[in-house]
Amino acid sequence: MSFQDYFPIWDQLQIQQQQRLLDSLSFQKVSRSTILHDGSTAGTGLYLIRTGQLRAYVFSDEGREITIYRLFERDMCLFSATCIIQSIHFDVTFQAEKDTEFWVISPEVYHSLMAESAAVANYTNELMASRFSEVMWRMQQFMWKSMDKRVAEFLLQEAAIEKTRRLKITHETIANPLGSHREVITRMLRYFQSQGLVKVSRGMVTLLDTARLEDLRDDPSRSAHR
Amino acid sequence: MSFQDYFPIWDQLQIQQQQRLLDSLSFQKVSRSTILHDGSTAGTGLYLIRTGQLRAYVFSDEGREITIYRLFERDMCLFSATCIIQSIHFDVTFQAEKDTEFWVISPEVYHSLMAESAAVANYTNELMASRFSEVMWRMQQFMWKSMDKRVAEFLLQEAAIEKTRRLKITHETIANPLGSHREVITRMLRYFQSQGLVKVSRGMVTLLDTARLEDLRDDPSRSAHR
Repeated sequence: MSFQDYFPIWDQLQIQQQQRLLDSLSFQKVSRSTILHDGSTAGTGLYLIRTGQLRAYVFSDEGREITIYRLFERDMCLFSATCIIQSIHFDVTFQAEKDTEFWVISPEVYHSLMAESAAVANYTNELMASRFSEVMWRMQQFMWKSMDKRVAEFLLQEAAIEKTRRLKITHETIANPLGSHREVITRMLRYFQSQGLVKVSRGMVTLLDTARLEDLRDDPSRSAHR
Repeated sequence: MSFQDYFPIWDQLQIQQQQRLLDSLSFQKVSRSTILHDGSTAGTGLYLIRTGQLRAYVFSDEGREITIYRLFERDMCLFSATCIIQSIHFDVTFQAEKDTEFWVISPEVYHSLMAESAAVANYTNELMASRFSEVMWRMQQFMWKSMDKRVAEFLLQEAAIEKTRRLKITHETIANPLGSHREVITRMLRYFQSQGLVKVSRGMVTLLDTARLEDLRDDPSRSAHR
């Protein structure tokens, strides 16, 4: 498998753009635990992961590492090249969680492709939006103090009691025993729905994926996000 | 002043694209406290603010509103039209904090312009990166428990004691009395630098904007971000 097979919008590039991209590449192998980018340099390059796994994290006030998302095979790492977008004003550190092989794309070449090609720019938009969504989710988890876990637990419990996956229940009814508010439950359920865990309709919550709801309930490090 | 003067990349559009954009517009006035978008609809449209002020917020577990950023005159609001980017999976609520006038851009038209025009796509990228940066900053503030305030206070105090704005000081020396770690201080100072508050060089921190550092120290609702 070559770079062409891993870069998702390869076919949308012109031949000369493809060539420019290939010429800009380097290939890197790092072993588990290596810190790849500590936020101190603006433009290491974009990583496209061939095999392995990267973890993105920030620091708590006491210097504790807080994981904000993970990148897997075929994922592209944008924030190792924050120089490609002016308005990025934050630092993320990346560490290999497994032995990892990846291509490094030159930030200058990628930047020039973004400027020329709406396809590359929109792909970059989607990448950033994915990470943004993950970070928003993490932030809400901080604020919601594992409300996702508690809602999952509640739904599974109700389903066990009522012996059905189709729960006739209002968001208010879920909120009250959990000491929460209707808005929070509505958002949580909408999020669960976007992740395929439940289906929400008027006065009804249908559990679609009880296995993942159970994972969410049982595993402290797990979130609904995938 | 017309829409053309407010839309920052107007000149980079082709004439027929400009026309399509103008044809898609509606103009709206809302009074203070109006809730504009509660996250329940995917595509109200993009707002371009002519006058006034919007607040974007999410909910805490107890239903408390937590402001994540504000939008002012000339700012464009992307997340009132999350349908334009597939990978956005989160809800933000917007409320007018002042009487506000804004144009609403049709999400379909904007989406088609993004697909055709690298300029529009890259502008959207920059917008999203700005909001992303603000949210990352907010998240770190949660985690850092007003470390920004404490660092500002420390720097101002040192400057008063040493009677100079050019402080010969290491990040470690700042971290220790604050019960923090060098990495956190380095990141905080780098962030302060990006906001024009200080200049960081080897073994030296120069205070550039003591007025804003004092604001940060004194006002609990204020952050370094502007």
